[in-house]
Amino acid sequence: MTIDALRIRIDEIDAQLVRLLNERAACALAIGELKRAVGVAIYQPDREAAVLRHVRARDAEMGGPLGAGAIGRLFERIIDEARRIERVSVADGGGPADPQER
Amino acid sequence: MTIDALRIRIDEIDAQLVRLLNERAACALAIGELKRAVGVAIYQPDREAAVLRHVRARDAEMGGPLGAGAIGRLFERIIDEARRIERVSVADGGGPADPQER
Repeated sequence: MTIDALRIRIDEIDAQLVRLLNERAACALAIGELKRAVGVAIYQPDREAAVLRHVRARDAEMGGPLGAGAIGRLFERIIDEARRIERVSVADGGGPADPQER
Repeated sequence: MTIDALRIRIDEIDAQLVRLLNERAACALAIGELKRAVGVAIYQPDREAAVLRHVRARDAEMGGPLGAGAIGRLFERIIDEARRIERVSVADGGGPADPQER
């Protein structure tokens, strides 16, 4: 593959990543709303640990090249961003997260 | 959707994210190898800026909930991790990145 072809593939992957990351964030927001409705604690470290175990296991199956360390750091950031938009959403009374960033 | 159903969907999304992030990293490594072979500078800030513009544009089309700020931070981390495994790969003479993390 040429550099140009690889970059085109990266752009395709990135478009899918943006779609999946947004769908994931929407699911996390929906979970937060359900938890508030039934009065469950929003922050559940057990679930977070399970998510990290799951993605490291999927990564190990793939055999890289990222590896458990990189995958762990990336998903910690993904979880952090979901938590951040959740906080903004609650502070705004459920409106869109951080409209000034759009 | 119930909390359990949303978590199952998040796990499915995460499995796809792990696959795409690894495929993306493999493409970035391949670009690095091609660049070394032809003697082009590895770090190209123009391309990085183009990647960030592209993912912010895709995100704007989707209408959130992440937003340009979160997408930018996530992709900066994704690009950072690709650069990190590239450095390890070059230091090891092209072997697998950071085998101790597996």
